[in-house]
Amino acid sequence: MKVFYNGRRRACRTVAFDRARNEVVMIDQKLLPHRFRFVRARTYSKTAAAIVDMTVRGAGAIGATAAYGLAQGARAFRGGSIESFESHVGKVQATLAAARPTAIDPINAMSLIRTAMAAGRTIAQRQKLAVQAAEQFADEDVAHCQAIGHHGQHLISEGARVLTHCNAGWLAFVDVGSATAPLYAAQAAGRRFHVYCDETRPRAQGAALTAWELAQQGVPHQVIADNAAGHLMQRGEIDLVITGADRVLGRTGEVANKIGTYTKAVLAARHGIPFYTAIPFSTLDWTLRRGTDIPIEERAASEVLGAQGADERGRLLRVQTANPSSDARNPAFDVTPPSLITALITPAGLFKPKTLQRHRRKLGG
Amino acid sequence: MKVFYNGRRRACRTVAFDRARNEVVMIDQKLLPHRFRFVRARTYSKTAAAIVDMTVRGAGAIGATAAYGLAQGARAFRGGSIESFESHVGKVQATLAAARPTAIDPINAMSLIRTAMAAGRTIAQRQKLAVQAAEQFADEDVAHCQAIGHHGQHLISEGARVLTHCNAGWLAFVDVGSATAPLYAAQAAGRRFHVYCDETRPRAQGAALTAWELAQQGVPHQVIADNAAGHLMQRGEIDLVITGADRVLGRTGEVANKIGTYTKAVLAARHGIPFYTAIPFSTLDWTLRRGTDIPIEERAASEVLGAQGADERGRLLRVQTANPSSDARNPAFDVTPPSLITALITPAGLFKPKTLQRHRRKLGG
Repeated sequence: MKVFYNGRRRACRTVAFDRARNEVVMIDQKLLPHRFRFVRARTYSKTAAAIVDMTVRGAGAIGATAAYGLAQGARAFRGGSIESFESHVGKVQATLAAARPTAIDPINAMSLIRTAMAAGRTIAQRQKLAVQAAEQFADEDVAHCQAIGHHGQHLISEGARVLTHCNAGWLAFVDVGSATAPLYAAQAAGRRFHVYCDETRPRAQGAALTAWELAQQGVPHQVIADNAAGHLMQRGEIDLVITGADRVLGRTGEVANKIGTYTKAVLAARHGIPFYTAIPFSTLDWTLRRGTDIPIEERAASEVLGAQGADERGRLLRVQTANPSSDARNPAFDVTPPSLITALITPAGLFKPKTLQRHRRKLGG
Repeated sequence: MKVFYNGRRRACRTVAFDRARNEVVMIDQKLLPHRFRFVRARTYSKTAAAIVDMTVRGAGAIGATAAYGLAQGARAFRGGSIESFESHVGKVQATLAAARPTAIDPINAMSLIRTAMAAGRTIAQRQKLAVQAAEQFADEDVAHCQAIGHHGQHLISEGARVLTHCNAGWLAFVDVGSATAPLYAAQAAGRRFHVYCDETRPRAQGAALTAWELAQQGVPHQVIADNAAGHLMQRGEIDLVITGADRVLGRTGEVANKIGTYTKAVLAARHGIPFYTAIPFSTLDWTLRRGTDIPIEERAASEVLGAQGADERGRLLRVQTANPSSDARNPAFDVTPPSLITALITPAGLFKPKTLQRHRRKLGG
């Protein structure tokens, strides 16, 4: 997408690879929306550290980061034997996989790279194939998101008022995004619409990241408290909901996504408002049999008890908003049953969540 | 209730009157939960200003504050004629009523005081009656809340997990509170239970005020993001919901309360979880015919776009959490239909919301 920085609007990706300097280049998402800055990871260890500390986050974005990190690590190898090269690459892969252990995308991405590398005979060939495969992974992430946009954009009619939750935008992918793809495609088609961004406490990715994204692309939008969507639906001010997902069970159609998604789906169903979840193929899990098998990460209480932002002089800091002696529960995800989801928007088209298994081959499973 | 300050636990009320110094004494709620401090308003103008700037908030609390402020203003009169005294009192009343124009409690409270004053013949008698009537209003507020506790406490069984929204605690009244009254009564009866406090963005009264209150009273509790309640209900971790209300329509049983209440009621109904709203008589509106007639205040966008708290050195400040170039919608209240409310807990007992009109006399209407 295009971002205004250094004096003009420039096209950029959330994560990219600088072959000449063997560096992974990422937008520093910890500083958004207050500052826009690229970070260069000079070694694969620093690339892994950028995943750990949330410099880069979002399923597709960390998949591509891990893919680039693996190529970066492979290219940094100094030695002679193919055996020690492979052993080194295995270590790089393990380091990057451990950076976000609950995510499936980095693991899938890196196994694609390893498969591609195996076709090379020499170290130099394998290094070259690693970079090519990583670039291909990133390009496919973009292409899948564009396909989601193609299939989903007709859902956004002229004047539509769309609710989103959390950030499943281009910052969460290499480019374009999943939940935002239909919006950007509808915008490109000349349609006007309005987006309500759920703040998405406790980490406020909706207010901080989605609102920033939409502002950069010139999409009219307003942030709302997570408490406000029910009221807006009741007053007839929301026409459809689009979210992303962290994991969708292919066998059942259940959707695991950022905490609060389930609540919005319940509200949408009550008001007869269509609820869509946009996902690339990599978000589909064909293994688990029940939504209750999905582990729900409980994150630090401090996220709920405080907030991060910029003070009036622009300094970034955290404030304690809750009673200091109180504890918090902080489940980070919830699971929405298929009965509440109108359709999944995928790169292969729209599917009712109950029919995924039947279309498994089309969905890359 | 009891609060720990100046070295020991002391009983205190949210608002009180110092006859000797003719001052209204209030807990400064703008500083909570970070600092506990009383503010003394030396003139009725300063009392009105404390309502305007949210030093004191909550239906019952501002009702009593206005009642005391009217007595305070009447007692400050220096002059001879009863006509100029009455004209002065009218001016005091208008100033206090304008401090929170959407609230009904200050207006009702002050008209009770004026009625009581009319029984006096001399200025001195009327001044004395004003103080007595204000104290009576405050004492009745406490008694009504205690009666809510009496009628509601049997709903809190041993081991219950209770969800609350916003603050309808003793900080919102003179003492005891409405939604919290059944909790405190159950605690006094020796039962153990756990309270989940919705954070209640954008102003976070649940995390800041309710959590502080419950911590002071030793009630086990945890703060949750507003997004989390649906997930906890889905997993069977919430047994009942109790909220307060800003206005309940006697004719229809519709409940206007802090934004997000409607969402929690929809979720509770989906999961078969009882949903109660606790109110004193003063919250009942016998005039309006439809919930859509209730004006929904839209507050400043800045509330949604930022957060207030304390930094690590304890300094109070606001941070910008959302994208700085984005706007926000900020509806402050929503309306819950009677079909989603199990019962209203009132000082006269529990009532189905649809039956209020039939019991109007018992409900002080």
